[in-house]
Amino acid sequence: MDRNLPIGVFDSGVGGLTVVKEIMNQLPQEEIIYFGDTARVPYGDKSKETVTAYSRQITRFLLSKQVKAVVVACNTASAYALDTIRTESPVPMLGVIEPGAKTAAAATRNGRIGVIGTEGTIRSGLYEAYLRGIRPDSQVFGKACPLFVPLVEEGWIEDDVTRQVSRRYLSELLAQNVDTIVLGCTHYPLLRNVIQETAGEAVTLVNPAYETACELRRMLTDRGCLNDGGKAPAHMFYVSDGAEKFRKFAHSILPCGGAEAGEVFLKVFSL
Amino acid sequence: MDRNLPIGVFDSGVGGLTVVKEIMNQLPQEEIIYFGDTARVPYGDKSKETVTAYSRQITRFLLSKQVKAVVVACNTASAYALDTIRTESPVPMLGVIEPGAKTAAAATRNGRIGVIGTEGTIRSGLYEAYLRGIRPDSQVFGKACPLFVPLVEEGWIEDDVTRQVSRRYLSELLAQNVDTIVLGCTHYPLLRNVIQETAGEAVTLVNPAYETACELRRMLTDRGCLNDGGKAPAHMFYVSDGAEKFRKFAHSILPCGGAEAGEVFLKVFSL
Repeated sequence: MDRNLPIGVFDSGVGGLTVVKEIMNQLPQEEIIYFGDTARVPYGDKSKETVTAYSRQITRFLLSKQVKAVVVACNTASAYALDTIRTESPVPMLGVIEPGAKTAAAATRNGRIGVIGTEGTIRSGLYEAYLRGIRPDSQVFGKACPLFVPLVEEGWIEDDVTRQVSRRYLSELLAQNVDTIVLGCTHYPLLRNVIQETAGEAVTLVNPAYETACELRRMLTDRGCLNDGGKAPAHMFYVSDGAEKFRKFAHSILPCGGAEAGEVFLKVFSL
Repeated sequence: MDRNLPIGVFDSGVGGLTVVKEIMNQLPQEEIIYFGDTARVPYGDKSKETVTAYSRQITRFLLSKQVKAVVVACNTASAYALDTIRTESPVPMLGVIEPGAKTAAAATRNGRIGVIGTEGTIRSGLYEAYLRGIRPDSQVFGKACPLFVPLVEEGWIEDDVTRQVSRRYLSELLAQNVDTIVLGCTHYPLLRNVIQETAGEAVTLVNPAYETACELRRMLTDRGCLNDGGKAPAHMFYVSDGAEKFRKFAHSILPCGGAEAGEVFLKVFSL
């Protein structure tokens, strides 16, 4: 593996940029090639077969760009497609579920963990399977929160409607006395404040985007594959539709360098 | 044109079933072939190019099934793609925008009309263009309401959160003193009660699904193409993903015959 090759990252749309942000923070020397499947977003309520077919196409696209690793920055694709596609890939692949689950298993004190995400992620039961694999005594409570993504995209972040929706969605989990909640969708860290307020300070929120960037750093370090090219990374962002909307969202969440890179290197690519 | 051929209807997903329902009510002898593009739903925030490409694929599919007419039961596809695809089609094509606009132009007393819909429909400005074409003195105020579709799909129909969202979305239009509002998205008739409550009884709500079925009936009558086969229609429903979810939604909104037909003739078809 050539250590100076870029890292491929993909998501169903813009949400995976929260993972990109964490990778940029923790691995500022790494070059990123991002694919956001904005023509077919969202994946959350599509079937396993469809999500796997889309994820396979995108992985092939990223591999054609000579990446040294692929990060599946989408909970639904990690849940439904990663196990299959990993066996087909010549480079290591990382999803967001395993790192999030490991951290949650370590963080809980009473063994009662809540997971919030899209319908697809929750229905897959994969967070639960990982969590119970690591910590068999844990009890996992999943709750799909389909309104959170459109609320984020509407920009109603610190908002009464969002607070009300958050209270309704979280009430079941809180009634189960969970002490840890996994933000199992890449958009949800953007609602972190409202979710923390609803859940109360005693509940630990786990952000899989952050944990995935940590895991990626460990993996590259262990394999001696950290980029040492010494030049500033030139990130590339590909989307399958709606470059302008993507650009705006990217500007609002990526650190300045990423936004500049997005300005220059955003392309619309049809799979 | 063979009068006993079926009518093709398509939408980005399940929303177009509100149009199917109106066609079944008004033209109970007609056979329907429906395509719901559930693998790529929603269209509302995708680009004109992408929506046109998807609509072209689906129209070809319906034409391969020997339909006598095609109804574009999706506001976004009607706004972005109908004008282009109509020129390529050997059979007549009807969208939902023109019938809705005609009715609104006739209904308004003060000439001030509100249009609510997805981002794509509102951004396209097509309702406005039609309305001002028919009634040049009218003033049209558009408002995108992206949370309405996920609220319907969550089943929060008569709900405080939905009321609050409705008040926020409609406040701009009501401040403009509109006396007529077009429900410019096929999901919105399902929120009719809440929207009417927010807008007040003095405001006329126009349901393009209903008006489109009227227009289809007129067109078939004028051309002498009403089905006179005398047998009970056997409707077919195709979706590109998630047959189970589609079936449930279809059951909840179609009259009994349609639900039964959906039970028997639902197929998943990959474009």
